[in-house]
Amino acid sequence: MVDTDNMPDSSHNLEDEVGRVVEQAKELHESAASLISRTAIDEQSLRQRALSLDSSLRRLRSLLNSLQSKKLVDSKLAEKLEDDLQRAKCMMTDGEVASFLPGKPQGRFLRMFLGPINVRASRKDVQLKVKEEYNSYRDRTALLFLLFPSLLLVLRGWVWDGCLPAFPVQLYQAWLLFLYTGLALRENILRVNGSDIRPWWIYHHYCAMIMALVSLTWEIKGQPNCAQKQRGVQLFLQWAMMQGVAMLLQNRYQRQRLYTRIALGKAKRMDVVWGETAGVDGQLWILCPILFILQGFEAYVGLLLLKTALVGVVPEWQVLFCGFLLVLMAVGNFSNTVQTLMVKSRFKAKMKRSKSKQELAQTN
Amino acid sequence: MVDTDNMPDSSHNLEDEVGRVVEQAKELHESAASLISRTAIDEQSLRQRALSLDSSLRRLRSLLNSLQSKKLVDSKLAEKLEDDLQRAKCMMTDGEVASFLPGKPQGRFLRMFLGPINVRASRKDVQLKVKEEYNSYRDRTALLFLLFPSLLLVLRGWVWDGCLPAFPVQLYQAWLLFLYTGLALRENILRVNGSDIRPWWIYHHYCAMIMALVSLTWEIKGQPNCAQKQRGVQLFLQWAMMQGVAMLLQNRYQRQRLYTRIALGKAKRMDVVWGETAGVDGQLWILCPILFILQGFEAYVGLLLLKTALVGVVPEWQVLFCGFLLVLMAVGNFSNTVQTLMVKSRFKAKMKRSKSKQELAQTN
Repeated sequence: MVDTDNMPDSSHNLEDEVGRVVEQAKELHESAASLISRTAIDEQSLRQRALSLDSSLRRLRSLLNSLQSKKLVDSKLAEKLEDDLQRAKCMMTDGEVASFLPGKPQGRFLRMFLGPINVRASRKDVQLKVKEEYNSYRDRTALLFLLFPSLLLVLRGWVWDGCLPAFPVQLYQAWLLFLYTGLALRENILRVNGSDIRPWWIYHHYCAMIMALVSLTWEIKGQPNCAQKQRGVQLFLQWAMMQGVAMLLQNRYQRQRLYTRIALGKAKRMDVVWGETAGVDGQLWILCPILFILQGFEAYVGLLLLKTALVGVVPEWQVLFCGFLLVLMAVGNFSNTVQTLMVKSRFKAKMKRSKSKQELAQTN
Repeated sequence: MVDTDNMPDSSHNLEDEVGRVVEQAKELHESAASLISRTAIDEQSLRQRALSLDSSLRRLRSLLNSLQSKKLVDSKLAEKLEDDLQRAKCMMTDGEVASFLPGKPQGRFLRMFLGPINVRASRKDVQLKVKEEYNSYRDRTALLFLLFPSLLLVLRGWVWDGCLPAFPVQLYQAWLLFLYTGLALRENILRVNGSDIRPWWIYHHYCAMIMALVSLTWEIKGQPNCAQKQRGVQLFLQWAMMQGVAMLLQNRYQRQRLYTRIALGKAKRMDVVWGETAGVDGQLWILCPILFILQGFEAYVGLLLLKTALVGVVPEWQVLFCGFLLVLMAVGNFSNTVQTLMVKSRFKAKMKRSKSKQELAQTN
């Protein structure tokens, strides 16, 4: 015992300090509670203002439309008012107000996997980070989508003597399952965060998830007569390769289009248009045929699988089921691509009209 | 044209109203932006205060410990100070301050599936809702865990003549995969939200996910000689049934224990102790043997699978792999249960000590 004299002193000091810290903890607790409740009140009032403004905008827009259709308003004025309303709308949906507008409800899919946790980012920059990361995830994915099946097909010819071994194919199928689950989760999250992604592209990923799962239970038959038995798998891999190319093209063009649209102020930056055609005109003529060929090939593979299953070479339910799903996906993809193209051309026609009018107005 | 006189009037009104709405949109945009930036500043300052207080708490605690070990402080005072520090700590971690303390980083697993979205709930009541929902999800799950394999085994004897058909078993395996993915995601989310779940129980679910995936590729062989070939599957189903019973017991006891601990103020409500033993003493004597028997049976099934694979009755890699995983999981579960029991008994001894001292103090 060196300094017993010091003992009451140091313990006294310590007691003081502990008391101070306990006091600080209480204060901190109170300020945290008050900040949280204050913010909640402020947010609530903003939410109400945003809601009432949103309904005013809707009311005025429908009023304007009805006046326009009855020709009760000058067309030039109507256009100006429409622009004003559009601007007000954009200010709300693109700016900070957006986080106070009620979002799309979190669907069953997210609840099923994640429970009731909120995945809506309250800050715009976080939302954009999520979107950016989704894009780069798709880029990485598309590369693997191209490489993985090509590798399998090349090895099949060079090393495996025309007969795919089960393990690498199942590894690929497991990767597909993981990939599509991740994509479906991310797209649902983007949707909650205000993206306008078409529901079909999410359903499409649900179908792809189910197909990957089913294909895992699908026995990869070996010799003898390998080529015939593995025809379905082989076709599927070829289709996946084409899918990889299309995804790479789509990703590039979509990003360009998104940036163009952001620059033009016409899109919220959360827009995702998976599988939709790019907006840059020249590139549209390359992408569209590729997409349609891909969809045709998808349906063809599906029909071949259905035939194989029904004729009875490989009488497993998995073959029938995958065939049916592929045809369904091809039809859905086709009809959604066509719908998107139609929306796009209508939009373009409208833009042209208003642009030429603007130019007229500027020359005046 | 009924009322052309009205036209300039109504369009004038409309113009006014649109102008007003645009003005309101601007104001709303500004208040939203200012609220968000103001809140961000307030939160930042609270975060700093919380961090510095946290480090003070740590410093004082270690100082107190060192003084105690050198016997430089009266033991009664030391205990009081320790209690004070503990109370301050609880006020921070259990109260509203918790959301301003840095959380555990979101692990690779969540990033892999969800991207960089933040799953941390900022409000305590949301966190508790997440925890509650996780508990009820586990309850529902445990029932299915019991029902699904029992049904398969009953039907196997009564309807399927001793030979399980592939489809229902694969459906069950797919369900397991979905279930374990959901559990792993939810537990990672709970962890981010401040739960003290032991990492092993999450790793355990990763292993179970992989096993479910692998078992999907595992061909369910039919007649002839069904009983021998399906021995692995059958054992696995029996083990799953026992697992279901144990889960039901665990869930009930854990919830009780959690509520007791919350009542005692000793636990944060985000604590999850999957697979850990219950705290209620009488129940511990029922649960522990069941858990150990279950773990023994898990290892036994694993070893049987390994034997089947190595002797060569079913020479598939899946059998070897699943056997290995089961043994690994059994060993991990066992060692973690034992560790938890040890922590618990140490904690209890400490509680008893301080309780008897308290009683002494009260009688004085």
